[in-house]
Amino acid sequence: MKDLPMKRIASLLVALAACIALAAKAPNKTVALTGPAPSLTEILAVSPATDWEPLDPSQLLVMTLANSHQVVIYLAPFAAPNTVANIQTLAHEKYWDGLAIVRSQDNYVVQWGDPNAESPQAKSIGSVKPTLVPEFDMPMTTGSAGFFKLRARDAYADVVGFWKGFAAARDLKQHRQWLTHCYGAVGVGRGETADSGNGQELYVVNGHSPRHLDRNVTIVGKVISGMEFLSSLPRGTGPLGFYKKPEERLSITSVRLASDLPEASRPAFERLSTMSKTFPAVLKNRRMRRDGWFLHSPQAVDVCNVPLPFRLRKN
Amino acid sequence: MKDLPMKRIASLLVALAACIALAAKAPNKTVALTGPAPSLTEILAVSPATDWEPLDPSQLLVMTLANSHQVVIYLAPFAAPNTVANIQTLAHEKYWDGLAIVRSQDNYVVQWGDPNAESPQAKSIGSVKPTLVPEFDMPMTTGSAGFFKLRARDAYADVVGFWKGFAAARDLKQHRQWLTHCYGAVGVGRGETADSGNGQELYVVNGHSPRHLDRNVTIVGKVISGMEFLSSLPRGTGPLGFYKKPEERLSITSVRLASDLPEASRPAFERLSTMSKTFPAVLKNRRMRRDGWFLHSPQAVDVCNVPLPFRLRKN
Repeated sequence: MKDLPMKRIASLLVALAACIALAAKAPNKTVALTGPAPSLTEILAVSPATDWEPLDPSQLLVMTLANSHQVVIYLAPFAAPNTVANIQTLAHEKYWDGLAIVRSQDNYVVQWGDPNAESPQAKSIGSVKPTLVPEFDMPMTTGSAGFFKLRARDAYADVVGFWKGFAAARDLKQHRQWLTHCYGAVGVGRGETADSGNGQELYVVNGHSPRHLDRNVTIVGKVISGMEFLSSLPRGTGPLGFYKKPEERLSITSVRLASDLPEASRPAFERLSTMSKTFPAVLKNRRMRRDGWFLHSPQAVDVCNVPLPFRLRKN
Repeated sequence: MKDLPMKRIASLLVALAACIALAAKAPNKTVALTGPAPSLTEILAVSPATDWEPLDPSQLLVMTLANSHQVVIYLAPFAAPNTVANIQTLAHEKYWDGLAIVRSQDNYVVQWGDPNAESPQAKSIGSVKPTLVPEFDMPMTTGSAGFFKLRARDAYADVVGFWKGFAAARDLKQHRQWLTHCYGAVGVGRGETADSGNGQELYVVNGHSPRHLDRNVTIVGKVISGMEFLSSLPRGTGPLGFYKKPEERLSITSVRLASDLPEASRPAFERLSTMSKTFPAVLKNRRMRRDGWFLHSPQAVDVCNVPLPFRLRKN
């Protein structure tokens, strides 16, 4: 019998979620950033409170599933103002209550909406319209202040970086920018026509970033809490990962804007500003990987592998 | 009530699995590749049989889980000869039978091995040794024939492409090449030291490609069937996604080389050669996306978004 040490890949590579949880739990002690390689947890623990921005509760969508699990989506109205407005209206009017997760396709997307959308039993979409001018990308001049340019080669775009806390990309010839399809990004399902996505059917990326979808759909936000409850759903066995049988679908109990919830039950998050002095230290930590476990430092990072830290706000 | 058409993102973006299933099921009819944009399914359906290579059953690892689901891993002995030899020995000696999936970390890895590896109750590793010279990368001169160079910018490597059916990358200064951490890639868990990964504990990537792990661990293969049974496992709630309680772990019934199975129950796969004439058509299909649903053609593809088709062999 061998008493072999447990092999763990990347003992330092604490998942972002775990890292944020730790950081959020860390008391206000001072951790000295001595030595060549502070960990991400350490970097966040000593970041000044002013490097963090509270999230507007009207930009937080709280989805409660029939199994009681909760998913929180951070909306990006600056990148898709009309579509996000539709989504806020749909949430306010309780459109998704009683609807379901209809699709789970491996290494692609999980999607939710009205299983009867195509039939006469479709639920009313209330005061929103069935079509909407698409917001696949935006002029670089609109809301482009605050774009943090990442020093990284990218297969799909001239420039990648971060736009108000979201991974983003730019086309320098066409002067357009957009939010990229990274893991956890939430987008708007649509049909063949550009205006057929009004926000009533949403999806989230559950695998390797399908960047070819960039500029083909409107990205409206990203999951910042509870992603694991969507990514671990059984894959649908119908075409495109749609669930074949109604009983396979997980029902949605409710979807609410945090601003519509009683203050006591609102999830209150803050995010590390990508314009803060702490953020370059986060990037350096990802690029250099000078921790004990890493024997080869990548000296690079791609736009979808950069942690964009969120944490619960302290009272 | 609106009879709204079901919004589906990327109706053409049939999952690779679905695509392969279709292609495998397609009768030997001739599908005319007329028009500007044959689908991936059409491309594969008309590919000549000589473009496909049967997989050596000694390179196929068949893992049967306690819930009866089966996962098939395609091993890459050319990229990690000694580590794959260890794994073949471990499978032959039934090392993993009765062990378990110990870890499921969201957007990172699922890992399996001996939950008691660190304790005196550790299962014997039989005739393999606890340490092994690492095979994180290989000289470009060894086995480099057959490297298909992909025209794509990459955040991490000078050159990316495909090496005997696997996504791979090259360092042109150091003349090294290695298999990349794409979704589904299978690697060898290790401790702090380079030689501590002997193949007894394995992991598979279940999210956005963690390319920073490239050259830090030995990649030994990839999942070609049944990935959805690993990716949909509940996430572990312990540090790094390890399951906290023994009862949360899914047991492994058996892991066998296909070559050790009776011929009648061997899964028989073939793969589209990345050196075939069909493969550039696959790449073009991914780059151009001139199908009806796509309104913006990416005109690019990253190394982890290229389908590397596998299918069951016809009898």
